[in-house]
Amino acid sequence: MAEGILSELAEALASGAVEVVDLAQPLEPATPIISLPPQFGQSAPFRAERISDYDDRGPAWAWNNISLGEHTGTHFDAPVHWITGKDLPGNTLDTIPSRRLVAPANVIDCTAACDADADFLLTPEGIADWEAQHGRIEPGSWVLLRSGWSRRTDAATFLNADDNGAHSPGPSPEAVTFLVQQRDVIGFGTETVGTDAGQAFRFDPPFPCHAGMHGANKFGLASLTNLDRLPPKGAILITAPLKIAGGTGSPLRVLALVAR
Amino acid sequence: MAEGILSELAEALASGAVEVVDLAQPLEPATPIISLPPQFGQSAPFRAERISDYDDRGPAWAWNNISLGEHTGTHFDAPVHWITGKDLPGNTLDTIPSRRLVAPANVIDCTAACDADADFLLTPEGIADWEAQHGRIEPGSWVLLRSGWSRRTDAATFLNADDNGAHSPGPSPEAVTFLVQQRDVIGFGTETVGTDAGQAFRFDPPFPCHAGMHGANKFGLASLTNLDRLPPKGAILITAPLKIAGGTGSPLRVLALVAR
Repeated sequence: MAEGILSELAEALASGAVEVVDLAQPLEPATPIISLPPQFGQSAPFRAERISDYDDRGPAWAWNNISLGEHTGTHFDAPVHWITGKDLPGNTLDTIPSRRLVAPANVIDCTAACDADADFLLTPEGIADWEAQHGRIEPGSWVLLRSGWSRRTDAATFLNADDNGAHSPGPSPEAVTFLVQQRDVIGFGTETVGTDAGQAFRFDPPFPCHAGMHGANKFGLASLTNLDRLPPKGAILITAPLKIAGGTGSPLRVLALVAR
Repeated sequence: MAEGILSELAEALASGAVEVVDLAQPLEPATPIISLPPQFGQSAPFRAERISDYDDRGPAWAWNNISLGEHTGTHFDAPVHWITGKDLPGNTLDTIPSRRLVAPANVIDCTAACDADADFLLTPEGIADWEAQHGRIEPGSWVLLRSGWSRRTDAATFLNADDNGAHSPGPSPEAVTFLVQQRDVIGFGTETVGTDAGQAFRFDPPFPCHAGMHGANKFGLASLTNLDRLPPKGAILITAPLKIAGGTGSPLRVLALVAR
């Protein structure tokens, strides 16, 4: 019977009845990265160095060496990234059970609210409103905050920082607690540079999405794009990070299977 | 109707009726990489540098910066990697249509032959024998050469080089031509460090799998593992490389959906 599902899926992919939507931003030197206060260690931007270019360094081939942070560009946060998830089983990229890398997605469209207020927070009330319209968020599924942030194509407006820090949307501390404790989601994803709101360093606890999700062995996804091409429910997300030994996170190409 | 396929898939994933098999090797400093003659540019090994470790460089978080080659460890070869694919449309990681990143797999088990002869070549006759038993290779599907090579867990036996070069299995030039011209596959994957046989620098043309596949806008996958957990036919492969702008290839976490 499961063979039947996979052969139907193969046919639907070939015919276009199931579409593969790319939720990743391109990785390039201009890819925006998070900037922390100067006393902290900093994540590296993406860099590429040409090894050969069909030339005397390699007559028939072109290739690059690359360097970047584990959390640069569209990326996956593993539980070990946060101190709350430091000692959990299966908390690093190479030990996460592979069945956890394919899961359904719930997409909560907050674009209008984020257009009106860059510091918009998704609350339990906002989630309840969405569930009343689209149905309950299932255990083991992703919640993605569609903010429209990926339309901000230059780093300055994407990061949106002033003297008071960054201004970008995210979940409220109460929303994180609700999604972890009441809905048992697999993780939380955003279009912004990280899973927490720009002002989340001021929250109680600080960075509640990182602290709450990773402390419950849940994942994060950041810098997503094309969320406007997903239905509120029904898409299946494929989130396959690099298998870095002990890795805390990884840039990745997030794909979504969507019925057309 | 396509919604039905995706909801059945979600249920089958949740119940374990469809398993997610991880075909990637871990990325770590010891990950074997190809070594070219010294006059050529060299691909970088995997390296990680700790940014913070729940310490004064980042009190609540741990993360790394990383560096590696686009073709280090389990990786994807894009058509632009080879001079034959240099000018094709959609030949770089960021321009490949995303629908091409999910496709069925044919797994040709040559383990016994590779155990007997490290320089084993898969030929059109070998493919015909396999098709007689398992069915025709469909257009747009992967062909994976299962060699048992991933059981070689130290770099020396994995690369298996002597004064005459590396000794590892791959497709014959005629097999590549057959798969491209007669079967229109999406690409060719191996358990070895590259898609071509270790002695392929001596073949006519040299590196026929790279030259033939990429010249026809097909892909490559190298350093795969767990191919013994796939059926000969019926698995669906998810090959989502990083979205490197202009990228020639990328380490990736290859996943297979398999019916149990």
